[in-house]
Amino acid sequence: MNSAQLFHQIRQKQSFLCIGLDTEMNKLPGHLKDVELPLFEFNRQIIDATHDLAIAFKPNVAFYECLGPSGWQQLELTINHIRNNYPGILIIADAKRGDIGNTSKKYAETFFHYLRCDAITVAPYMGSDSVLPFLEYADKWVILLALTSNQGADDFQFLGTGNHERLFETVLRKSLHWGNAGNMMYVVGATRASMLVKVREIVPHHFLLIPGVGAQGGDLAEVAEYGLNGQCGLIVNSSRAIIYADSTKRFAEAAREKAREIQGHMKEILKNKGLTER
Amino acid sequence: MNSAQLFHQIRQKQSFLCIGLDTEMNKLPGHLKDVELPLFEFNRQIIDATHDLAIAFKPNVAFYECLGPSGWQQLELTINHIRNNYPGILIIADAKRGDIGNTSKKYAETFFHYLRCDAITVAPYMGSDSVLPFLEYADKWVILLALTSNQGADDFQFLGTGNHERLFETVLRKSLHWGNAGNMMYVVGATRASMLVKVREIVPHHFLLIPGVGAQGGDLAEVAEYGLNGQCGLIVNSSRAIIYADSTKRFAEAAREKAREIQGHMKEILKNKGLTER
Repeated sequence: MNSAQLFHQIRQKQSFLCIGLDTEMNKLPGHLKDVELPLFEFNRQIIDATHDLAIAFKPNVAFYECLGPSGWQQLELTINHIRNNYPGILIIADAKRGDIGNTSKKYAETFFHYLRCDAITVAPYMGSDSVLPFLEYADKWVILLALTSNQGADDFQFLGTGNHERLFETVLRKSLHWGNAGNMMYVVGATRASMLVKVREIVPHHFLLIPGVGAQGGDLAEVAEYGLNGQCGLIVNSSRAIIYADSTKRFAEAAREKAREIQGHMKEILKNKGLTER
Repeated sequence: MNSAQLFHQIRQKQSFLCIGLDTEMNKLPGHLKDVELPLFEFNRQIIDATHDLAIAFKPNVAFYECLGPSGWQQLELTINHIRNNYPGILIIADAKRGDIGNTSKKYAETFFHYLRCDAITVAPYMGSDSVLPFLEYADKWVILLALTSNQGADDFQFLGTGNHERLFETVLRKSLHWGNAGNMMYVVGATRASMLVKVREIVPHHFLLIPGVGAQGGDLAEVAEYGLNGQCGLIVNSSRAIIYADSTKRFAEAAREKAREIQGHMKEILKNKGLTER
């Protein structure tokens, strides 16, 4: 998927919502725990109920890996279900990979070729050759960690690295030599909305993947204020607030209601900026 | 495995060699390409031929992931083969994982509980809470990326972070608050042997995992000169030089010869330091 297709989807759906599929066995509704492929069955119903409100789905690979080969099979089935039924949606593998060149090449093969995802989250610590192999695929995306939403982000990401710059800013600036706004995005934690100003100074045109936004309109409004650009430029993720909105047989319906609520806020924001088609 | 058990193994085998199982379909000997579980069959023969010369095996997870569920099955079979037949050997998952707390917890479950590895390589960019969940398991190890051997290491790891310190030094220093020499090791690239002096100033007692050492005694001697401590403190990895030493039916025998050659150098080094039992 290229950036024009992504922006088209955003305008059509009046949404920049990504739904995180952090699907856990012990959080599934009771009636699903005994089915043969419980994670997939849960995901399938969530996806079917929300696909017209979200522009992206983001399976968190750790939650599938921990079940071994069956987990990988259910991850694969989930991705294929999206790919085959809702072909316009961006599929992000939240995998935080990154290694030396020949190993990153294998990870790229796994997520782009074998699993047919559109995008993968990548950790920057090992530098250019850990990222470049992912950029060799046309219409695929690297989503590089810049500023994460967790507490540990303070340990290294805010360190001054000279030139009045902090590490997350150096990561952004250096990565501009590796890719462009058509094949790279950045993870920027919503808990640091004010930092979006700094981020936008360095990468005004790139899409940003924003985790850590609650269902509150307030958070979202702040993120939009500092992060929106002329092509929207934001993908805001919500995982647990949507997929675990209810733990009974009506979980998918409840997920839809929650997704609709967030999408409603997004529609207002996009309309106010003249970024919708309708 | 704790550090006393690891040091005991080093003295017994007169070796600090780790063999990297970067096993690739297209590099397998021709006669193995048609067997049902080719990666596992290759690994099994390599392991059986070299287990008395190596103190650790390090499967590179990317090379298994790229085959989907079958790759995970073969990774699992490989680990179980080591665990069941050579229980004293350290098993390192080279996975470069790291994410927010609840996700790192899942990765820890996968590699420590489900796959029963002893150690996992972890990327530091997301800070403390991306590492701590791995440290909750007794007798397991986090091997944190400090200074990697690839070219991209120059992009961020050498950035000055104030206090006359570079990023890799800050990573080492801060991580001392998270774990200790009994549950953390560090990746330090052998291509930067002179940097080992700096590393040893900050972490004198920890084990270091050293990738990027060729078969040459020279490299190894330099790494040993700057890196050895009173409990050896080094695990030196070689992958392709050993496992792909020969591409015919005698690949395992050739791997043994190569491993024996490197172990021979290590034996001399350990003897000179009085670190062997024999």
